[in-house]
Amino acid sequence: MSEIKSDIQIAREAKMQPIKDILSKIDVPDENFAFSPMGRHIAKINLEYLDTLKNKNGKLILVTAITPTPAGEGKTTTSVGLNDGLNKIGKKSIVCLREPSLGPSFGMKGGAAGGGYAQVVPMEQINLHFTGDFHAITSAHNLLSALIDNHIYWGNKLNIDVRRVVWRRVMDMNDRSLRSIIVDLGGVANGYPRQDSFDITVASELMAIFCLATDLKDLENRIGNITIGYTRDKQAIYAKDLNAQGPMTVLLKEAIRPNVTQTLENNPAIIHGGPFANIAHGCNSVIATKAGLKLADYVVTEAGFGADLGAEKFLDIKCRKSGLKPDCVVIVATIRALKMHGGVAKEDLKKENLPALKEGMVNLRRHINNIRKFGLPVTVAINHFITDTENEMKSLLDFCETQGVKASKCSHWSNGSEGTIELAKNVIEICEDKKDTFKFLYEKYIALVK
Amino acid sequence: MSEIKSDIQIAREAKMQPIKDILSKIDVPDENFAFSPMGRHIAKINLEYLDTLKNKNGKLILVTAITPTPAGEGKTTTSVGLNDGLNKIGKKSIVCLREPSLGPSFGMKGGAAGGGYAQVVPMEQINLHFTGDFHAITSAHNLLSALIDNHIYWGNKLNIDVRRVVWRRVMDMNDRSLRSIIVDLGGVANGYPRQDSFDITVASELMAIFCLATDLKDLENRIGNITIGYTRDKQAIYAKDLNAQGPMTVLLKEAIRPNVTQTLENNPAIIHGGPFANIAHGCNSVIATKAGLKLADYVVTEAGFGADLGAEKFLDIKCRKSGLKPDCVVIVATIRALKMHGGVAKEDLKKENLPALKEGMVNLRRHINNIRKFGLPVTVAINHFITDTENEMKSLLDFCETQGVKASKCSHWSNGSEGTIELAKNVIEICEDKKDTFKFLYEKYIALVK
Amino acid sequence: MSEIKSDIQIAREAKMQPIKDILSKIDVPDENFAFSPMGRHIAKINLEYLDTLKNKNGKLILVTAITPTPAGEGKTTTSVGLNDGLNKIGKKSIVCLREPSLGPSFGMKGGAAGGGYAQVVPMEQINLHFTGDFHAITSAHNLLSALIDNHIYWGNKLNIDVRRVVWRRVMDMNDRSLRSIIVDLGGVANGYPRQDSFDITVASELMAIFCLATDLKDLENRIGNITIGYTRDKQAIYAKDLNAQGPMTVLLKEAIRPNVTQTLENNPAIIHGGPFANIAHGCNSVIATKAGLKLADYVVTEAGFGADLGAEKFLDIKCRKSGLKPDCVVIVATIRALKMHGGVAKEDLKKENLPALKEGMVNLRRHINNIRKFGLPVTVAINHFITDTENEMKSLLDFCETQGVKASKCSHWSNGSEGTIELAKNVIEICEDKKDTFKFLYEKYIALVK
Amino acid sequence: MSEIKSDIQIAREAKMQPIKDILSKIDVPDENFAFSPMGRHIAKINLEYLDTLKNKNGKLILVTAITPTPAGEGKTTTSVGLNDGLNKIGKKSIVCLREPSLGPSFGMKGGAAGGGYAQVVPMEQINLHFTGDFHAITSAHNLLSALIDNHIYWGNKLNIDVRRVVWRRVMDMNDRSLRSIIVDLGGVANGYPRQDSFDITVASELMAIFCLATDLKDLENRIGNITIGYTRDKQAIYAKDLNAQGPMTVLLKEAIRPNVTQTLENNPAIIHGGPFANIAHGCNSVIATKAGLKLADYVVTEAGFGADLGAEKFLDIKCRKSGLKPDCVVIVATIRALKMHGGVAKEDLKKENLPALKEGMVNLRRHINNIRKFGLPVTVAINHFITDTENEMKSLLDFCETQGVKASKCSHWSNGSEGTIELAKNVIEICEDKKDTFKFLYEKYIALVK
Repeated sequence: MSEIKSDIQIAREAKMQPIKDILSKIDVPDENFAFSPMGRHIAKINLEYLDTLKNKNGKLILVTAITPTPAGEGKTTTSVGLNDGLNKIGKKSIVCLREPSLGPSFGMKGGAAGGGYAQVVPMEQINLHFTGDFHAITSAHNLLSALIDNHIYWGNKLNIDVRRVVWRRVMDMNDRSLRSIIVDLGGVANGYPRQDSFDITVASELMAIFCLATDLKDLENRIGNITIGYTRDKQAIYAKDLNAQGPMTVLLKEAIRPNVTQTLENNPAIIHGGPFANIAHGCNSVIATKAGLKLADYVVTEAGFGADLGAEKFLDIKCRKSGLKPDCVVIVATIRALKMHGGVAKEDLKKENLPALKEGMVNLRRHINNIRKFGLPVTVAINHFITDTENEMKSLLDFCETQGVKASKCSHWSNGSEGTIELAKNVIEICEDKKDTFKFLYEKYIALVK
Repeated sequence: MSEIKSDIQIAREAKMQPIKDILSKIDVPDENFAFSPMGRHIAKINLEYLDTLKNKNGKLILVTAITPTPAGEGKTTTSVGLNDGLNKIGKKSIVCLREPSLGPSFGMKGGAAGGGYAQVVPMEQINLHFTGDFHAITSAHNLLSALIDNHIYWGNKLNIDVRRVVWRRVMDMNDRSLRSIIVDLGGVANGYPRQDSFDITVASELMAIFCLATDLKDLENRIGNITIGYTRDKQAIYAKDLNAQGPMTVLLKEAIRPNVTQTLENNPAIIHGGPFANIAHGCNSVIATKAGLKLADYVVTEAGFGADLGAEKFLDIKCRKSGLKPDCVVIVATIRALKMHGGVAKEDLKKENLPALKEGMVNLRRHINNIRKFGLPVTVAINHFITDTENEMKSLLDFCETQGVKASKCSHWSNGSEGTIELAKNVIEICEDKKDTFKFLYEKYIALVK
Repeated sequence: MSEIKSDIQIAREAKMQPIKDILSKIDVPDENFAFSPMGRHIAKINLEYLDTLKNKNGKLILVTAITPTPAGEGKTTTSVGLNDGLNKIGKKSIVCLREPSLGPSFGMKGGAAGGGYAQVVPMEQINLHFTGDFHAITSAHNLLSALIDNHIYWGNKLNIDVRRVVWRRVMDMNDRSLRSIIVDLGGVANGYPRQDSFDITVASELMAIFCLATDLKDLENRIGNITIGYTRDKQAIYAKDLNAQGPMTVLLKEAIRPNVTQTLENNPAIIHGGPFANIAHGCNSVIATKAGLKLADYVVTEAGFGADLGAEKFLDIKCRKSGLKPDCVVIVATIRALKMHGGVAKEDLKKENLPALKEGMVNLRRHINNIRKFGLPVTVAINHFITDTENEMKSLLDFCETQGVKASKCSHWSNGSEGTIELAKNVIEICEDKKDTFKFLYEKYIALVK
Repeated sequence: MSEIKSDIQIAREAKMQPIKDILSKIDVPDENFAFSPMGRHIAKINLEYLDTLKNKNGKLILVTAITPTPAGEGKTTTSVGLNDGLNKIGKKSIVCLREPSLGPSFGMKGGAAGGGYAQVVPMEQINLHFTGDFHAITSAHNLLSALIDNHIYWGNKLNIDVRRVVWRRVMDMNDRSLRSIIVDLGGVANGYPRQDSFDITVASELMAIFCLATDLKDLENRIGNITIGYTRDKQAIYAKDLNAQGPMTVLLKEAIRPNVTQTLENNPAIIHGGPFANIAHGCNSVIATKAGLKLADYVVTEAGFGADLGAEKFLDIKCRKSGLKPDCVVIVATIRALKMHGGVAKEDLKKENLPALKEGMVNLRRHINNIRKFGLPVTVAINHFITDTENEMKSLLDFCETQGVKASKCSHWSNGSEGTIELAKNVIEICEDKKDTFKFLYEKYIALVK
C-alpha cells in the first residue's frame, strides 16, 4: 500500500486553475455581477446573473447506489468521475454535490469531496468552513431560537407553551452533550426554564428549506411558515408570528449563492447545501442544480444513501417540489458491497467469492426495479476495487445483462476520467434516447396510506 | 433631519473600488501569494506574504476617548476620519479596526463600521458574517467544549471535575436563554450532566488569544495553555492535555489572516479580531496592527471604552505583549458628552450650557493626565455635532490650551477627510517630534498590589 | 339518595371501643410488652409478643375480584364485611388490610377503609398519617438516596456512575412535578448533577421489601441487597456497600409492628403495609398476615386488582416467599361490573340488561378458572347494589351454579354483618373441607420463559 | 473515662413511669378527652382539654447562653436539670423543649434530648420519628408545593410566574443534593420546568407558623397568608389563593397537640415544635409553653444560640406575638467556652488558664447586659465540667458578683437534680421578687431602621 497516495496527498498535489478560468469554461464572465471570488479557487455565482441566462435544457443525471454497507460504495467519487469522463469525451458537464458538514468531519465520517483521482478541490477549504454557508444557516437558525425565548421573556403574547417549543437549536458540531439540555435557568433575569436540544446544523429544517427554495423570496416565505411550537391549546405558532423570516433571510443572502469549485481535472463542480439524508431529503440545493442546467449540457448529481431512500427522496421531494426531471439514473455498485450483502464478513472481502456475490446481486436487482417504477432508465456503474477478480467482474456484468441494464466497470478512483469513459458513453446514449416517462410515486403512496 | 442621510444610505451610495486596487495603493500585488479576495471588495492578506515585507517603522496612532456616555463620542468614526485625513494630505495611512459582533448587531448596539462620511465599506458584509472569522472562532471554541465532554464521557482519564469545568461554550448571538444551562442530560448515551453556559463569542478567551497571537504557531501554543477546568483536587487541566490545540488551530488558519476593506474615500482599512472591551482587552489583532505598520507609514487604531480602561489595556496588555509602541494618542471628546458629565440630561443636550461644559471638562483633563503617565504625547479631537455652539467650542478649545494640549474641531461625520485635516496635521507634528518615552504602568501596578 | 349516609358520616357515628378491649377479644393483654397504644383506638402489636404465641393453624381466606372497572367491585368492603360476618356467626376472625397512601388520598382515589356499613375505623386517622409507617418508609428510603449522593460527593470510592443510579427518591404525595428532576445543582458545594425522580412512597422497593420481610433481621438483610446503581462498567452496587441497611432498619423498627384497629362492628382489623399493586405485589405485610393467623381462627385478606394480577401476585410472590397457603378464595363480582364487561356504558348501568350481563360473565368464569389452576377452592361474593334486578341476580347465581361454584348475594354495604352471613357460611364450609392442593404457577412460568 | 456512661446508656437504663402517671402529677386525668397515649411513655395532650383549664399564672424561666463555641455550653441539659432541681425542692415545674430534627440527627449534630443525668426520655423515639409531628409538617408543606405546581399545570389562572415561586419544598433530611434542583421536567405530561430547592423541614416557614399559632383556627389563618410566589408583575400570591389552608391544617391537627414525656427523674417535659434557630425564631411552640403555664407553677424553656440571637428572638418574636413574659432569665456559661472566647484552642481547654478565662468573661458580661436591656432579671448557671479547676470556678463566680449577678455552679450532668438545687433557689428568689419591667426591643429597632 505504500505506493498508493492518500486522498489528501492527491488533493494537495492538484494543479488547480484560477476559479475565473474554470468559470470561463462555462461562459461565466469575470465580473462582479456574475460571481464573487471566495479566495482564488472558489466562487459564489450571483443569482441575479443566473436570472439573465436562458435554460439550456441540459440533461440531468442522478447518481444513486445499492444499499450502503461499511465497505463503501463511492457515490460521490463516481459522480465526480462521471463528470470528468463526460468532459473528457467533449461534453460540457457540471457535477452538483452537497457541502460537507464540519460536525462529522471532525468526527468519524471523514470529508465528502470524493476520493482518489476523482475529487473536488481545494479539499481542505471545502471540508472546513468552505464559504461559510453552514455558519450562516446556523446563525439564522439560532436567531429564531433566540427570538422565541425572547418573546416568551417579554410577556409571551403568543402564548407559546414552553413545553411545546419544537424549534430546537443547532450547532455544526458532533456534540452529544448538547442533545438534551435545559435552558433559561439562572433566575428572573434570564428566562423561563425549558427543555431544549441542539441538533447538528445539517439536521436543521432550515437546511432542508434552504435546499428546496427557488430564490430569496421563496426562501423567506418558507421560513415564515416554519412551525416553532404550540400554545397550551395546541395551536401552531409560526416563525412569521415572530417576524423572524426577514432577519433570518438577510443572514442567508450570501449563502444562497451556489459555490463553484473544480475537480482534479479542472472541470467545474458546484457544491451547495447539504441536508441530512437520514432525516431530510439529502440532496444539494435546487438553486445549484438549476444553475447547473443553465450553465452546462450535462449535470451530474447525487442523492444520499441507497436508491430506495435517497433516490426516492430526490425524485419524490426535490423533483416534485422543483419541477426537475432526471434523464438517466446511475446506480453505483461495488463487488465488495454486493458480497457483503451476500453474507461475507468485512475482513473476508478481499477473497473471491462468486456464490456470495450472486447472493448479493438481489440487492442490486431490487434497486434497478425500484428506479424503473419511476419510469426512469438505469445504468449501473461498477466502482472497481483492486481486489475484485476477473471472475467476479464477469459474473456481475453478465447479471446486469440479464436484467436488461448496461453496466460499466469504472476505475476513476485510480485513473480519473479515463476510468469512466464507458460509463459516460452509456449515460449519453440513454440521455439521447430519452422519452419523458418520469412519474412520481409520492401521489400513489399518499393515496395508499389514506 | 429629513435632508440628512442615514449611515446605511451613505454606505450604499459608496463608490467602492475593487479591493485589488485598494491593495495596490499599499503596494500589495494581485497574486495568490499576497492575498485572497473574499468577494470583490474584501481581501484576506496572507501571513506568508507579510513575512516577506520589512518593517517600515510606521507611526502608530492610538485613538481613545473620554469616559463614554449614552450621547456617544465617535471613536471609530474619528479613527476612520483621521485615516482619510492623513491620506488626504498625502500620507500613506491605514486604519486598523475591530470586527463587529453579529450578536449585538442583531441586538441593540448597531454596527461598528463608523458613521456619516467616515465609514468603512461594504457595510452590510462587515456587519453580518464578514469573512467568517467569528464563525471560525466560535467553531474552534466549541470544538474544545465538545472535546472536554467527550473526554469525560469516554472514561475521564484526566479526572476532570464536572463541577469545575471553566471552559464554557460560545455563540455569536445575544441569547440570554443560554446564559445558564444544564448539558449532558438524556441518560447514559449522552454524558455526565453538568451546569454550563454560553457566552457571546467576542467574550471568548479564544478571541483574546487570537488577537494577541503573533503567528499561527504562537496561537497554537496559547491555545494549548488554556485552562479548561480542574480535577476534584483542584489541579488545573489545560487544552493541551486534550490535544485540542492542533485541530482548533486548523479551524483558525483562514481567520488569522487580516481582512482588508476600504473607507468611503477608498483608503485601505484593516478590520480584524474583536475581543470584548469590558472583559478582555478590546483591541483589534496584533497581527493586523503589525501588518499595518509594514504596509503604511501611519497606522490609526482604536481601543475600547475611555482612556482609563481601553487605552490602559491597549498600552499595558497589547503593547506589552507585542512590543508595539504608540507615537501619539488622540483623545476623542464631544461637547455633548462633556456636558453630560457636567450633569445635563440627555434630552437637554441641544441647549448651550457653558457651566455644565466646564464642569464636564474635568473628565477630559483626567484622561489627558492618565495618558501622560504613560509618557505619551496627546492631542484632542473634538468630534463636532451640529448642535454645538460657537461659545461652547471656544470654551473647550481654550480649556485644552490651558492643559498644554492641541485640540482640533473635527467634522468628518459630515465632511469626510476635509473635516480632519487639522487633526491629521496635529498628529503628524506629534509623531515627527516624538521621543521614545513610553512606559508601561502595569509593572508599577503589579508591584503595588503585591 | 338523600337518606343514604356517606361513608364519612357512618364512620363518624361509629361507637368505637377502646383498642385494649378489641385486643382482649383476641386475648392480647394490656401490657407494654404486648402492644403500644397509638391514641385510644389504634395499637401497634409488639413482634416480641407475637413471637411468644403459638401458631393456631388459622384459616386464610383470600379476597380477590373480577377484572376491575370504573363501576367498582368492592374488594376491601367485602373483606371487612366477611370478617364481620364470620364474627357474627361466632368465629374468631381478623381482617388484614393494606394501609392507604396519603398521596392518592389527597388526589383522586379516596380512602381505602371500606365503605357503607363495612368499614374500618377511626377512618380519618387511617386515611391520613395513621401510625406514621409510610412516613418512616419515606424517611428510610430517602436516607439511602442521601447516602448515595453523599458518597459520590466525598470521593465516590465505589465509582457509582451518576447516570446509572437507579435508586430514586420518594414522597407520600401525588406530585407530578417531581417525576423528572435534576438534583445536585448549585456548584461545587452541593454535588454532582444528575437526573433523578421522586416516586410515590407506595411504589418504593422498600415498601415491597417491608411487606415481604419476616422480621427486623430479615428486613435488614433485604435492604442490604437493594441495587442502588451501577459503576461505569455496569457492575451492580448495593445498599450494603454504603452500610445503609443499619440506619435504614432503625428508622423502621416502629413501623414494622402491625397496626390494630376495629371494624364498625368492633371486630379486630389489622392494617399494615401497602405496596402498589400495579408495580409491586400489592398485599399487606407478611408479618401482619402471620400475626392474624396467630391471633384468630380465620384471617380474611385481600389482594390488589383482579384475580389474574393481584391474586396471582399474592399466591406466587407473597405465599411463595412466606410459606403462607390460602384455604379459600373469594372472588368479588358485581352485576354492574359484569354488565360493563358485557359492553354497557357507565351511565346505562342502572337499567336491567340480561344479555350484557351474560356477555360479561365470561370474565368471571375466566377468573374462577385462573384460581382453580392454583388448586384452590373458590366461592363468589356478589356485592349487591340497589339497582341490581331480581332477574339479573338470578341469572348470575344460575351461571355460578353451572360453573360448580357457590355464590352468595352480599349486602354488607347496607346491612353490615347481616349481609354476609351466607358468604361466611360458604367460606367456612370450604375451609373445613379443605385438602392441601395449593401449588404455585410461578415455577411453571419460569420454566416456560427459559 | 471508662467508668463514665454514655448518654444513650443512661437513657436506656432510665426507670420510666407510665405516661399516665407522669400526667397525673400535673393533674391530667387518664381520659380520651385529656390526652392520647402514643406508646406507653409519650402522650399528646388535647387542646380541647387545655381550653378547660384556667391559667395558673405560672412563672416562666428562659434559659439562654453565652455565644456558642465548639466546646458546647449545655442549654438543653441545664433546662432539664433546672426542671428536675425545681421539682426536687418541691415545686411543680415543667420543662418545655424543642423537638429534635431527624435530619441533623442522622447527620453530625446528635440528638437534642439533653445529656448525662439531665435528659428527657424515651430518648430514641424522641430523636427519631417521635410522634410524627415533623412528618406531618413535611406533608403539609409539600402539599402546598404540589398544589402550586398543579395550579400552574392546569392553566395557571393566578398567573404564577414560575421564576418567582418562593415556596420551596422540604424534607426532614440533611441532603445537600436537593438544595438546588430543577423540577417539572419530562415533557408536557409533567409540568412547567422551574428551579426549585428542598430545605430541611425545620427551616420551613410552616414550622415557624406552627410554633407561633395559638390554636388550629389561628394556624389555618397564618397558613392562608403564606406568600407562595409572585406574578410576572410582581404581585404576591398567597396560599389562600390556592385554598391550601384547609387541607394543610387537616394534616396538622394531630401534630398541633403538645407531646408530653418525662425526665430521667420522672418529671414532666413537654417537647413540641422546633423551628431552626438560625433562620427562624428557634423556640418550642407557643401552644406548648402556654400549656405548661396552665399545668405547672414553673415553666423552664430555652431559646436557640446565644442570648444576643436566640433570647432576642424569643423575647421580640415569640413573646411579642403571644403575650408571654419571662420572669427570670438563666444564662448558661461554661469555663471551657469562656476560655475559648479568651483565645484558647479546643485541644488546650483542659489546662487551667485564668488569664484566658478573664479575657473570655467579656462575652458573658455582654450577654448579661443584653438581657438587662429587656428589663429582665438574670442569673448565671455555670455548667460544670470535670476539668474545671477550683481557681477558675472561683474567678468566674467572683466576676459574676462584680456584675451584680448571682451565679451557681451546676453539676446536673453528673448529679441530676442534686446539681441544680442552688440554681433552682436562685431562680425562685428572682421569680418571687419579680416586678413587671419587661419590654420589647423590637419596636425600638424598627424605629431605628426606618
